[in-house]
Amino acid sequence: MRPAGIPQPESFVSDSIPVRPPDIDEVLLETMYLSIDPAMRSWMSGPIAPGQVMRGGGIARVLQSRSALFQPGELVQARLGWQTYPTVPAKYLQKVDEARGDALAWIGPLGLSAITAYFGMRDIGSVKPGDRVLVSAAAGGVGQIAAQIARIEACQVAGIAGGAEKCGWLAELQLDAAIDYKAENDLAAAIGRACSDGIDLYFDNVGGPILDAALLHLREGARVVLCGRISQVATDQPYGIRNLGQLLTKRARMQGFQVFRYHDRYEEARAWLAARHREGRLQQRLHILKGLGTAPTALGMLFRGDNSGKLVVQVKV
Amino acid sequence: MRPAGIPQPESFVSDSIPVRPPDIDEVLLETMYLSIDPAMRSWMSGPIAPGQVMRGGGIARVLQSRSALFQPGELVQARLGWQTYPTVPAKYLQKVDEARGDALAWIGPLGLSAITAYFGMRDIGSVKPGDRVLVSAAAGGVGQIAAQIARIEACQVAGIAGGAEKCGWLAELQLDAAIDYKAENDLAAAIGRACSDGIDLYFDNVGGPILDAALLHLREGARVVLCGRISQVATDQPYGIRNLGQLLTKRARMQGFQVFRYHDRYEEARAWLAARHREGRLQQRLHILKGLGTAPTALGMLFRGDNSGKLVVQVKV
Repeated sequence: MRPAGIPQPESFVSDSIPVRPPDIDEVLLETMYLSIDPAMRSWMSGPIAPGQVMRGGGIARVLQSRSALFQPGELVQARLGWQTYPTVPAKYLQKVDEARGDALAWIGPLGLSAITAYFGMRDIGSVKPGDRVLVSAAAGGVGQIAAQIARIEACQVAGIAGGAEKCGWLAELQLDAAIDYKAENDLAAAIGRACSDGIDLYFDNVGGPILDAALLHLREGARVVLCGRISQVATDQPYGIRNLGQLLTKRARMQGFQVFRYHDRYEEARAWLAARHREGRLQQRLHILKGLGTAPTALGMLFRGDNSGKLVVQVKV
Repeated sequence: MRPAGIPQPESFVSDSIPVRPPDIDEVLLETMYLSIDPAMRSWMSGPIAPGQVMRGGGIARVLQSRSALFQPGELVQARLGWQTYPTVPAKYLQKVDEARGDALAWIGPLGLSAITAYFGMRDIGSVKPGDRVLVSAAAGGVGQIAAQIARIEACQVAGIAGGAEKCGWLAELQLDAAIDYKAENDLAAAIGRACSDGIDLYFDNVGGPILDAALLHLREGARVVLCGRISQVATDQPYGIRNLGQLLTKRARMQGFQVFRYHDRYEEARAWLAARHREGRLQQRLHILKGLGTAPTALGMLFRGDNSGKLVVQVKV
């Protein structure tokens, strides 16, 4: 059955199936880490039918290969299932360079959330030095990296997150301001205080009332990057955005995107991210849950904001 | 007093003041036509204070000039007031070429509404051959021209207007489809029928529920041009847009603009529009009210959709 609202552990069943040896052009993998992302909830209403293996991106080690492209022992980034030993077509795998970072770096600051932040800030947001930037879900998987990219690009950066603990982390990332949306009665006013000169670039991961409040503070020619809308994904009653008129008044642009469209340019992003990571200017705080059995709980945590950092399931413990 | 809601005739008072001879670098004009535009309502909540002369763009004839740039008898496009004989700084005037069109052409297909449509379709909408285009308020001042530009650019074009009479006019303009929003109970379904392949470019002049319905039919990579929002300008209760998630799903862009920003490029637009007008491929239906005394009524007509065609006040009758 397809879930309504926030996915619960009961939204999933676990199953043991025999490991399948790889066919030609396939690879048998040992899953190391699985990324837990808001988009997964959308998949449960769309591409993934009840009874199918839940899909998820992650990092795995090659155990057996019948592809000339991969050797046993190599580390790969892949579209995996929530499985310990998946057998996967080689075309779904991308070799990762362990000289650039270990498996945790490849699920974190070099991973797909980071690549998402890279293209969102640069290609969609046209980030430039001096921009006043606001990032929502700034302690989350994509938000953390988006905020740090803005900082690296010499922007003024404010972040929105839920709770003092996450906002403390934003201070450690040396953002110029952190807004705890759970502690504010008037979010629009709080954004106004944190971004007193207005916003040139709003990187939005949440949609709904936070997006609506941010619109009130756009500067002339502002860009709004629609990267995610976690506040709206698990509801049938979408919030009505009232402040779109600001796009007209401020000659502003709002644009949605999906990282998969940049597939041909992932290496460009990885090279940039790896260089900044090596310089110590790009970090990612991970919230790691141990064991594949935690995955069904993990997705719901994301929607309740119970995670502190990018949420990851460590499958090989 | 600033008006609430739709401007009424009582929102204005008329006054007789002596004609003022021009000072140095000023010109005394005889106003021929005044354009009546939705933006004027916004000015009444902002830049124009109660007691000031209502501002409006239009076409006038030079009577006396103390500027070396203008000679008596010349036709000018100008930021005018609702006045018969305004005295205006020469810098607010642009000379118009009567070889390209008469005064009515210059308020119509060569005028500022047409220039707005030009930059909106091309620079903001990135119109290209084969695009499926939808235009709202397609019988209005900007919408008519936007729809015709799309047709000239070899697009499939559907228009939305209120009432059978306006939709008949859209058929005369040879649009592929006309949607009478006043006759449809389910506007989203009506758009789906008229734009059965979806929408690559939505040129929006109205905002509110029509914008919300159009979002449901965007194609991958669609562009939404926010040119106006007449349904929302005269209300304190803005409509909440629920379908913004479509921008994400469809990797679509929504952008607001103001024609004044293109001031340096008006001549480019005029040359293009004049050439199409000369070829007979670009027309503008005007709704002409006679006498300056009609101006206070005119603005309200616009918000009730009582005009059929671009609304103009003929001052010199």
